[in-house]
Order: sequence, then structure tokens, then C-alpha cells
Amino acid sequence: MPSISHKGQAMPESPIRKLVPYAEAAKKNGTKVYHLNIGQPDIKTPQVALDAVKNNTIEVLSYARSEGSEEYREKLAAYYQKNNIHVGSNDIIATTGGSEALLFTIGSITDPGDEIIIPEPFYANYNGFSTASGVKVVPVISSIDDNFALPKIEDFEKLITSKTKAILICNPGNPTGYLYSKEEIEKLKQIVLKHDLFLIADEVYREFAYDGNTHHSVMSEEGLEQNAIMIDSVSKRYSMCGARIGCIVSKNQNFINTAIKFAQARLSPPTYALLASEAALDTPQSYFDDVIEEYVERRNTLISELQKIEGVKVANPKGAFYCIAELPVDDTDAFAQWLLEKFNDNNETVMVAPAGGFYSTAGEGKNQVRIAYVLNKKDLTRCVEILKNALNQYNS
Amino acid sequence: MPSISHKGQAMPESPIRKLVPYAEAAKKNGTKVYHLNIGQPDIKTPQVALDAVKNNTIEVLSYARSEGSEEYREKLAAYYQKNNIHVGSNDIIATTGGSEALLFTIGSITDPGDEIIIPEPFYANYNGFSTASGVKVVPVISSIDDNFALPKIEDFEKLITSKTKAILICNPGNPTGYLYSKEEIEKLKQIVLKHDLFLIADEVYREFAYDGNTHHSVMSEEGLEQNAIMIDSVSKRYSMCGARIGCIVSKNQNFINTAIKFAQARLSPPTYALLASEAALDTPQSYFDDVIEEYVERRNTLISELQKIEGVKVANPKGAFYCIAELPVDDTDAFAQWLLEKFNDNNETVMVAPAGGFYSTAGEGKNQVRIAYVLNKKDLTRCVEILKNALNQYNS
Repeated sequence: MPSISHKGQAMPESPIRKLVPYAEAAKKNGTKVYHLNIGQPDIKTPQVALDAVKNNTIEVLSYARSEGSEEYREKLAAYYQKNNIHVGSNDIIATTGGSEALLFTIGSITDPGDEIIIPEPFYANYNGFSTASGVKVVPVISSIDDNFALPKIEDFEKLITSKTKAILICNPGNPTGYLYSKEEIEKLKQIVLKHDLFLIADEVYREFAYDGNTHHSVMSEEGLEQNAIMIDSVSKRYSMCGARIGCIVSKNQNFINTAIKFAQARLSPPTYALLASEAALDTPQSYFDDVIEEYVERRNTLISELQKIEGVKVANPKGAFYCIAELPVDDTDAFAQWLLEKFNDNNETVMVAPAGGFYSTAGEGKNQVRIAYVLNKKDLTRCVEILKNALNQYNS
Repeated sequence: MPSISHKGQAMPESPIRKLVPYAEAAKKNGTKVYHLNIGQPDIKTPQVALDAVKNNTIEVLSYARSEGSEEYREKLAAYYQKNNIHVGSNDIIATTGGSEALLFTIGSITDPGDEIIIPEPFYANYNGFSTASGVKVVPVISSIDDNFALPKIEDFEKLITSKTKAILICNPGNPTGYLYSKEEIEKLKQIVLKHDLFLIADEVYREFAYDGNTHHSVMSEEGLEQNAIMIDSVSKRYSMCGARIGCIVSKNQNFINTAIKFAQARLSPPTYALLASEAALDTPQSYFDDVIEEYVERRNTLISELQKIEGVKVANPKGAFYCIAELPVDDTDAFAQWLLEKFNDNNETVMVAPAGGFYSTAGEGKNQVRIAYVLNKKDLTRCVEILKNALNQYNS
């Protein structure tokens, strides 16, 4: 029998995937499962985007341009300019989701054996994209005790080798909810300039900054033009995860010209989704105001309820819609499975994401879970109640 | 300044891309450019697929399942079964176009430095996907003199090393239009079984088999279950190039389980396009009958007209909608550029794809072009007339 590649064997499995059969079995047995485990918001997609697709007049569903149409990229550039990100259409490549933006970026700047430094915990699929490209993720640990703020720059310095090609951050962070300050971005700027590295910032949660804090993009930093690469996506901003439209943004034209070659090889991003994404740029500010208000209330509900449980430590997220909680258990993989397999509270249970999958360092995050606050406040309150009862029963 | 990767530098540029500025300039100068250079059909997408998207009731545009929904894959399996391809939903992974299907396949079965043997001329992006994965394409040359039939098996044997992981064919072929016979597929079967290789068949043009010939899938070959991987796509079958839905099909569950990890890392294929693709499976047979009739007439028109030009040799395609023609010029790159830059016939010209980009062996195909017969017969006739006048002028 022909053999699978080493790379294919090394590809990580989704940390949630192994729980799915237990969730399905629980549902089959009549248990209601609240999903706190995924970043799929319940927020309605802007009507203007839905309508653009419903009212389309396409008769031949043709290829789009590999980098997205000039019109779309110009409109997108105008959106960025309003957000203090001064780019033009030629600095943008539309991609099939933020996922593909990361794949093209990693392909353009790394060769097999190269290294990318990432503060952990980090979005689990960074591991997948790196493995697919034969690249090694070098983690630098951040701590729940300061809400997962940027690790000390000395900690980055220690990890830089001749193989290091980039530092990758997610801002605001999935899974941490941490929003990097301007000062933190400037510290990163110094180190990437000093070592001639790229600074890749996954900014797909840009709009989700709370408590009067402003998001500060790597693209707004003067002097970082040749080093900064922004990854973006319509998925979270417009609750359009299923569109699969993202983009790469950079002022480094050498990099953009390289990434375009990857884009050409796969022909084009999906045409219907581009229609929706272009229309979504006309979403009124009131939509975001309402969404942000809703998320802040959800976060406040979730955090204050979680803090009432003895033995639970929780980071206070200033952005995105996730938080990491430390639970009074040894192994959240086992606990998350137990929640689905053995436990129910009035025929209800919760599904959480064990945080081990968000760490690259073995053994880290074993007592943490990621909770996505993508459910309404009533459900979230009920979820924390279920979690509390579950912890009582699990630990007795 | 941080540096671009060797891989990024090695990524090939689209062979047509460099002609685009000349085509744009010609149009600006008022010259009509007939596009014979691309595989974008002018055929209408089935109404049932267009309607499924127009009538969608989505309110939250959510992620689809990474491998596509169970419903879609079951319906797709039923389509394959009607085509003598006996697979179930678990043998199928929905992908973002045939492009992604190839990327996941190459990632699952090769490591950097491995080799894939491909009869040339071949679809130019096979080079791009291979380069992106650090894999070396080993070409085995086929000839216009026998319409690009399968090269002798001894020619493959000579090229097999310990690094060889697969043989990749496109059937019917882009750019050749060649339809492999059952006997040819069986010869490939013997050699991949003997050497424990995968046989990857890009069968996206399956429906386009002419003159009473039947398409014979690698998936229909008994004994090849663990070796055969089929790449498919809705792009050409339903004239839905812009949907970006393809799939991987294989009975080798070890391979499928590996490819699914790549699929999970990028989350999901585009949701609207999946709606269209599922509905497209209800396209009536009359649609295909009409389309095939149209393509056969176009091919007949194109080939018979081309054969009238002195010094032109043309392969006779039995499938897909391309043909390779040998022209009485030294360098079709220069000629194709000249057609756009210097020539017009009554303010009209044609854009063709120089065939050099479809060969991996340097210098091969320099006097060939690929012509896509995706225009109506009247336009095709006019195109050949333009080409004839152009050749007269170019060579005098």
C-alpha cells in the first residue's frame, strides 16, 4: 500500500474534533448541548450582505480575479483608511478565508525547517498551517495572571535563531481575548526591525475591542511598512464565517507579488462570497454598535458568573469573544469529555474547548478551557450554572 | 528588509499572466480581443444551481462542515455511482475547488523533495501546487503526433525513484483534450501497483467525452482501491468555475483521514457555493446533452478550420474543451504577445495561451499554443481567420 507523508502524519487534529462523537451521542440521548466550544457567532449577518447574494443576477458563475476585483479591493482599502490603516488596493490580496491568507503568507516567507515565534496560547490552526508548510512553531508563553499580555521581549530574543522568519500574533486574541496595546505593538516593532523579521498580525477580531480601548494595527506603525503583514477576514466582523473571504494586506510589494503567485495557482476566491463581502462593507455603524454592546454584556455576564465559582480563575478579555478559564481539574481534555459522556444537569450539558490544543508546549494549559461567548446572556448564565454543578460533581 | 522564501521565489507565474497587460492595452486602443486563452466557458450555469442561491434563507452565514455536509456527500456519491464509480460519502471530502483538492492530496502523500511523475504537457498549476509543497514534478513527454496519448510505460519506469510518490494524470486532459482509454488506465494501474505509488486522476472534465467514447475513471478499476485518488470539481461540469467547490475521492481511508486534517485546519469550503453545488446535482441530463453537442460542434469547427492553415498541425481532442496546435513560428510566447501588441485584423485580435507553460521540460512546446474552444462557432471561425491572417503577416 502506498504510504502517507510524514507531513500528513504530523498534521494536528482539531482539539475539538475528538469530542464531537461524544457531543453527538449526548444529543442522541436527549441531552441539550450548549456549544461554548466554537467561534461561530449566533449574530445575524448584515442584511445588505445577505441581500446582495439573494438579488444577484449571475448567469455564468465565472472565476473571480485571483486577487479579488479592483472594485472590492478599493472599497476594502477605504474601510481600512477609516481605521487608520493607510493602504491601497495594490496592497491587498483577497483570499479564501483568513486561513488561506495565512497559508500564502507562510509559503511566501518560509521554507521547510524555518521557524515562526508565536505567543501561546494561540489559535490551534496556526499549528496546522505551519505543519502543512514544514515550518516549526516556536512558542513563547504568556500567562493567565496578566490576562495573557505580551510576554517580555527578552523571552522573544532568547528564541530567535537564523531560522526565525517571523513573529505571529493574533490581536485581539483567539483564544485569549487579549488586546495588545500600542506600546506592546511598538516593542514588537523594535525586535522585528532589529532582526529583519516579518511581523504577522491576525487582526480578524479588529472590531471587537471593548471598554473604550482602541485596536492598534501593525499596519498603522510608521517604519514597519516592509515588515508588517496583516491577516484579515469577513468571518467574524460580519458574522459571515461561511463566506470564506479573507485577505492579506502589506505594503511590502515584494511579499505581495510573491503571495499573488500562490493566489494565481488556486485561480480565485469564491464569487458569491465576494459579492456578499463587497456589499458587507456598506454595513451601517449601528450594526457594529449593537454587536459590540451585545458582546460586552455577554462577556460581563460570563466573567462575573465564572468568578463566583470556587477554584475558577478567569482572564478578563478586552476583545474578541473568547476567554480562557482555569478550572479546578487536572485535565480538561478528560473533563470536557466527561461533561458530554457522563454528566447532565436537567438533561443539559456544555461543550467547552480544552485549552491544551492552544499550546505548543506539551503539558501547558491542561487545567484551562476556552469559552466562546457566542450565546445569548440567558444561555450563558445557564451554561455557567451547569459548569458549576458539573465541577461540584466531578470533584466529589 | 526581511526576505522572501526560496519556495516563494520558485513559485511559477501563470503562463498567461504576462500577456494580460498587452491584452488590456489592446482593448484600450479599441481592439476587440477574443479570449481563446482561458478555460472559462460561456455556457450558462444550470438554473437549478443559480436558483438555490437566489432563494437561500440563510440569516447567519455559518461555517459548513470541513468535509462538506453528509447530505451533499451522499448525493455526490449517488452521482458517482451512476457513473460506475462505487464510492460512499465517507470516501469524499468537499474542497474549495479542485485546486485545494490537489493541494491536500499532495500534502497528504508527499514530503519536501519527493517526486510526482506527470505526462506533459500538463495543467500549468500542477507546477504551482508542487512547488508550494516543495515537491518536484518529473515530466514524461507525450506527443502531438498521436494526440498526446499515454507515453510508453517504459518511459514512466525509467523515471521512478525511491522519491516517487505518485503518477498524476488529467483525464480528459487540459491542455491536450486527450481522453485516456480503459487500456491506458490499466497500464497505469499495473505500474502503480508494482511500485506502490498513488495514481492521482484529475477528472474534472469527466462529462466532456466525445464521439461516443466513454470516460473511464481510475475509481472504476478493481484492485486499485488503495492507490487511486480522484480529483473532481463542479467548475467545468456545471459551468460554475466561480463556485470554488471540488472534492477528493478515494477508497484509501488512511489517505482520506489524513486529507481531512488539512481540511479541518482551513475550517470549511464556502457555504453559498455548497448550496449551489448540491442543487446542481439535480441538473437534468438534457443540459449535458446540449452542452456536449455544442462543444462537439465547436471542436469540429475549430479543428477543421485550423487544419486549413498551411503549416499548422493540430491534435484531435476527444474530450474537455482544449486543443494544442503547433504553429509555423519559433516562439509562441513572442507570437502571442505580438498578436496583442502589434497586430489587428479589422480591429480584432485573439489571445492564445503559449504552450511552453504547460511543459516542465525547458524548450518543449515552444511552437505550440493551447486553444480553449469556449466561444461560439461564429466567433471561433472568425478567430481562426484572424490567426491565419496573423500568421501570414508574422511570417512575411
